[in-house]
Amino acid sequence: MGKVPRILSWRNMLVLSLAVNFSLILRILKGTDGGNSSYVVSIWPVVSNSLDRTVYGDSKWPVVSTTASGSSSLSSASCNYNETQEDDERIINLKLGDPMVYERYWQEMGHMTTMVIAGWQSLSYFSDNNNELCWFLEPELAKEIVRVHKVVGNAVTQDRYIVVGTGSTQLYQAALYALSPHDDSGPINVVSAAPYYCSYPLITDCLKSGLYRWGGDAKTYKEEGPYIELVTSPNNPDGILRESVVNRSEGILIHDLAYYWPQYTPITSIADHDVMLFTASKSTGHAGMRIGWALVKDKETAKKMTEYIELNTIGVSKVSQLRVAKVLKAVSDSCGNETAKSFFEHSYDAMFERWKLLKQASKTSKGFTVPDFASQRCNFLGKVFEPQPGIVDCEKFLREKKNILTKSGKYFGDDLSYVRYGNLNNAMIETFNHLR
Amino acid sequence: MGKVPRILSWRNMLVLSLAVNFSLILRILKGTDGGNSSYVVSIWPVVSNSLDRTVYGDSKWPVVSTTASGSSSLSSASCNYNETQEDDERIINLKLGDPMVYERYWQEMGHMTTMVIAGWQSLSYFSDNNNELCWFLEPELAKEIVRVHKVVGNAVTQDRYIVVGTGSTQLYQAALYALSPHDDSGPINVVSAAPYYCSYPLITDCLKSGLYRWGGDAKTYKEEGPYIELVTSPNNPDGILRESVVNRSEGILIHDLAYYWPQYTPITSIADHDVMLFTASKSTGHAGMRIGWALVKDKETAKKMTEYIELNTIGVSKVSQLRVAKVLKAVSDSCGNETAKSFFEHSYDAMFERWKLLKQASKTSKGFTVPDFASQRCNFLGKVFEPQPGIVDCEKFLREKKNILTKSGKYFGDDLSYVRYGNLNNAMIETFNHLR
Repeated sequence: MGKVPRILSWRNMLVLSLAVNFSLILRILKGTDGGNSSYVVSIWPVVSNSLDRTVYGDSKWPVVSTTASGSSSLSSASCNYNETQEDDERIINLKLGDPMVYERYWQEMGHMTTMVIAGWQSLSYFSDNNNELCWFLEPELAKEIVRVHKVVGNAVTQDRYIVVGTGSTQLYQAALYALSPHDDSGPINVVSAAPYYCSYPLITDCLKSGLYRWGGDAKTYKEEGPYIELVTSPNNPDGILRESVVNRSEGILIHDLAYYWPQYTPITSIADHDVMLFTASKSTGHAGMRIGWALVKDKETAKKMTEYIELNTIGVSKVSQLRVAKVLKAVSDSCGNETAKSFFEHSYDAMFERWKLLKQASKTSKGFTVPDFASQRCNFLGKVFEPQPGIVDCEKFLREKKNILTKSGKYFGDDLSYVRYGNLNNAMIETFNHLR
Repeated sequence: MGKVPRILSWRNMLVLSLAVNFSLILRILKGTDGGNSSYVVSIWPVVSNSLDRTVYGDSKWPVVSTTASGSSSLSSASCNYNETQEDDERIINLKLGDPMVYERYWQEMGHMTTMVIAGWQSLSYFSDNNNELCWFLEPELAKEIVRVHKVVGNAVTQDRYIVVGTGSTQLYQAALYALSPHDDSGPINVVSAAPYYCSYPLITDCLKSGLYRWGGDAKTYKEEGPYIELVTSPNNPDGILRESVVNRSEGILIHDLAYYWPQYTPITSIADHDVMLFTASKSTGHAGMRIGWALVKDKETAKKMTEYIELNTIGVSKVSQLRVAKVLKAVSDSCGNETAKSFFEHSYDAMFERWKLLKQASKTSKGFTVPDFASQRCNFLGKVFEPQPGIVDCEKFLREKKNILTKSGKYFGDDLSYVRYGNLNNAMIETFNHLR
């Protein structure tokens, strides 16, 4: 009997040790179990707390839904910069979009795209000593940009220079800087067919540049000489696939293809233009990273764009670039997985569901209508569908009668009776149904 | 004997289990042991590989030291944007700085500032629903900015608005946008006493803004009417503590205090100016994050600066802000630790050592001299010392005779015989010694 306790004690110790193993494995897998002072535990809460406050916050945002609650109220949030309303006004603000629709997908993906960065990493200004042109572009991001475009088939990357920017907004300005004449010929006109993205005229004219100026609606543009035409396709705000409309030999084109991804519109061809702009905000939903990229045919243009970003911000956040590289990798990987829905299929379904509900609500409402789009076959998803964007009329009805803030067509160079909404989500649709 | 193997087998299993425990603990502590498919291992190499390539890379940088090797060659690197030289030219490029001097400190701090970010975090554009002004400022960063200035005593934060920017370069432009008249009075002159930071004229004039233009050396500025004076203190490139020099009632001041930290200069007073610019690149060495901040007295100015950053880049990378918040926290924490050297003491010692070696080298060299500075008492470090910046003459000698690239005084509005070097490091000092 004397040996039994000894054996049990070995057993006990083994059980104890295995339990420790188990808890350590759990900690490694989950990265958090609260309160303890070990490395993973000590670093996790700092990040997740501060981020959770942002993502799941107290819902004290200027935007309050009448129907949503908890995290979904924030998912429905679309804040108007610098404009606040009191909670008790119970307003839905759809003036500006926020890509929280993608939150659930990335949550379901778990830690596949979790990133760990040590304090001594990313100190340097420089990212790639082999890149003679865009020295602040992380090679990992460049690789994943090329890969995702190949997988989706939405843009040519071969023989293109990649310039990374702090969002595609900065790249738009970089393109203007690169493509404008720097002689004394005065500012070149920048035009775009109305309705156009409402920030473009503001961005273009904010510094009263002597290099370029906003020239208004491309459809009515008549001036002689060189001009820059901005082609946003699918268009923000109306979702229509576009081509240039001025079509004169002295025109220089910038293509904003932020929404040219299969969750928004059928991918009908591989885009092949001189300057093409993309952004993580719209492709994967990572707006808070502020990462955009340009695919540029001409080396000198890419060089001048890089020069602008050097002058404007001395490069682009490395950690954001690495974060987006990892996310794009996960997106591309998901497309090769035959057993589960890809990121784009998942996102397409979410958009489809919302667009369908909005159309249903509009059919029985006297307050607003939604436009019909022609269906096309998407080369990536392999099915026929219509674009799923956002335009309803009219702004005054929604604002005065129903406390729904949208952005009037006047900001887009369009008819006052049209509005653009920033988010099409469940809270909004429930509200539309409620209004009927 | 039959029982011995059984006991041993328990023992063996226990030893095995303990070994597994040990390896799991090691993995948690070190975050990497390669090859395995568990969570930490699977996420760590992606980040550390891509980052290590940046930080410790193959030394194919455009800049090559004649003396350094391995990671220290990159620590000595100071790349000239968009300019490359072949390795075999054996050139030391000191034209532009890269704050790799801080790498060792952050490595020694281990995982204190390691950050973990999940894929579903930081999707939203918005950071702080309680901040009516700078809605893209992470509250955690705001808190740590206030704290570090209080700890160091180098700037007033009470009743100041914080505007975060993609580096202080963007904030300089935001300040110009905010402080320039937006009426039809034409561009306001922006002046600074020579020698000034060589990028300022380029940034100011790159878009030929109708709001502002570079007006040259403040010391010879004679024009009537409103003007903006940029006061860089300590000054880049010469390290001298500065005050405004034009001193007329219509002057509007921007204070660039990027170097006003105790490792560079004695902190003699709490800076209290209308617009003060700081950056992580110079304070903690995290240049790759592209994070700067402005402390702004006037609400309308802060609002207009925020507006510029909205138009320019729709906010600032969240993950970079959180990274810098964590680093600033570690810096402030280190200052309260009586048993170990603070971040600033550590950095001061590194700067002191280098400056001392350079001065020794210059004393016995006919090729160049270094200036003498008046010593002052630093309120933070509690000791008397002189500023430790970088200026040697002359550029031609260093370039033609010794293959050391520096930036000529002409770019700073100064005498051609002066140069600014971007990095003062061991490789450089060894080379200077070698040249004697």
